[in-house]
Amino acid sequence: MDPIANTPAPPYYAVIFTSLRADVDEGYGAMAKRMVALAALQPGFLGVESARDGVGITVSYWTDLESIRAWKANAEHLEAQRLGHQKWYAAFKTRIAKVERDYALLRLAPGGTSVRSWAPVYGVINRVPGLTPFARSISIQAF
Amino acid sequence: MDPIANTPAPPYYAVIFTSLRADVDEGYGAMAKRMVALAALQPGFLGVESARDGVGITVSYWTDLESIRAWKANAEHLEAQRLGHQKWYAAFKTRIAKVERDYALLRLAPGGTSVRSWAPVYGVINRVPGLTPFARSISIQAF
Repeated sequence: MDPIANTPAPPYYAVIFTSLRADVDEGYGAMAKRMVALAALQPGFLGVESARDGVGITVSYWTDLESIRAWKANAEHLEAQRLGHQKWYAAFKTRIAKVERDYALLRLAPGGTSVRSWAPVYGVINRVPGLTPFARSISIQAF
Repeated sequence: MDPIANTPAPPYYAVIFTSLRADVDEGYGAMAKRMVALAALQPGFLGVESARDGVGITVSYWTDLESIRAWKANAEHLEAQRLGHQKWYAAFKTRIAKVERDYALLRLAPGGTSVRSWAPVYGVINRVPGLTPFARSISIQAF
């Protein structure tokens, strides 16, 4: 999975999950991995980004609120949430947000010039096969 | 600053900045730190959360879109953005999103029972002095 999610043009939804781990491990790593793999199979899933150093931030992207509700109610996910509440997290906050605009830098070549553009071009860029966030030097500005 | 931002009840806005660093350092750390401190001084700033391991995710929270626009146009921030484009980032994506709902776990005591509640209680909790995300065992569910 791309470390920077290759989401379509807005609007779409983001679930921002920010957490502080408790001392307890007990299967946390395997469960976290399983939840990412399982989320990716759900209808409406668009991508996920995740980083932890002290605080952990995981942002998953979805086509609509209904997809987010369905994922939250997934039986295996409910069990993971229960264990998270019970033992894995000291604190967390989950925010459901509607992405209204986005812009990106994708550098194609070291020192290459940047091409700035707007939403129509953005859509084209997103459809170019193999142009992942690792591709370099196209800058797209849509805000 | 709290590692989990103590934001007010929604709605408010989130700027989700996901990035991959280039190899170049050249003052990146100092500038990143300065930008967090400077952002915190801007009108409409509500908080910021940040983590990096490989991919970096920084989410800043704002009262409204106008505050985000003003911060994006801040002279010192514009220079930081220019340098980021030019040398510090291999790729990034910025998403502007409206937070519509949130819920949280704040554990008050190890093994303590969780209290689940809705937005009105959420507001009260947010006003309890000293109850930071490090406080433990109040679970607030508003989704």
